[in-house]
Amino acid sequence: MNNQNELMIKMVVDAWNGQLARTTKLFNELTDKQIENETAPGRNTGTYLLGHLIAVHDALFTLLGTGQKMYPSLEEVFIKNPDKSGLEKPSIKELRNYWNEVNDEMQKQFGQFTVDEWLQKHTAVSEEDFLKEPHRNRLNVLISRTNHMAYHLGQLAYLKK
Amino acid sequence: MNNQNELMIKMVVDAWNGQLARTTKLFNELTDKQIENETAPGRNTGTYLLGHLIAVHDALFTLLGTGQKMYPSLEEVFIKNPDKSGLEKPSIKELRNYWNEVNDEMQKQFGQFTVDEWLQKHTAVSEEDFLKEPHRNRLNVLISRTNHMAYHLGQLAYLKK
Repeated sequence: MNNQNELMIKMVVDAWNGQLARTTKLFNELTDKQIENETAPGRNTGTYLLGHLIAVHDALFTLLGTGQKMYPSLEEVFIKNPDKSGLEKPSIKELRNYWNEVNDEMQKQFGQFTVDEWLQKHTAVSEEDFLKEPHRNRLNVLISRTNHMAYHLGQLAYLKK
Repeated sequence: MNNQNELMIKMVVDAWNGQLARTTKLFNELTDKQIENETAPGRNTGTYLLGHLIAVHDALFTLLGTGQKMYPSLEEVFIKNPDKSGLEKPSIKELRNYWNEVNDEMQKQFGQFTVDEWLQKHTAVSEEDFLKEPHRNRLNVLISRTNHMAYHLGQLAYLKK
């Protein structure tokens, strides 16, 4: 039984790592100029989606209760406001660094959770609600963010020639 | 322990159902004309991505070992060949019907698997390899196909005004 639990955790974490590897590979293949482009006419630029993914992943530290955000200022620019907000964005060079730093730290943490820790509640649900809805746990957040990354990866792929 | 197993299966199946509901909602909101458009200049049309997702989901019946494909001819047009292959495609009306039929049947089957059945090997791995790589099971296929759907959903979203 315990083996089945660990196997399922591994599968979910592997799916995260797989999408992360694909997305990182794409960013590494794209030039700064390509990342600055719109993914499609009138749609989000690669810059915005890169910043958006960093900000969403960075928010996992607080949501999973494992630490503080590394780059809290990104939320205003890349989550609360749209691409053409006029707010100043970090350079692509800086964003590339943030991407690696946030995701590296995250992967380190993910490798250390036990099964029970993965199934503990995330910080956006109350103890009371969690008793009734035990699926509102850390692992579920990871599943959701993996799909979120895949969704935007599909769009970022359009930056390639 | 058994509770934790069932909880994790529920989370993975819920993630599939969630992405499926979002994708179905999008197709229902789009007119046939909109679906015919390219998702971005020079990229796959909505028609192709709709057919592609149906064909990939339809292939799950054989991959999970629960039945035969409902529309085997789609593989040639929507998986083995690209959008502008010149091969004749079904009408959008037909594709909309196939989408519902394939996914409805699939959801029915998914609701009936036990934990052990979800963790059984899929049909593309040998008994021998499965002993060494127990993650190559049905649930892992579902995780992978959920991310695949999210990836293309991100692109299909560009069909909306």
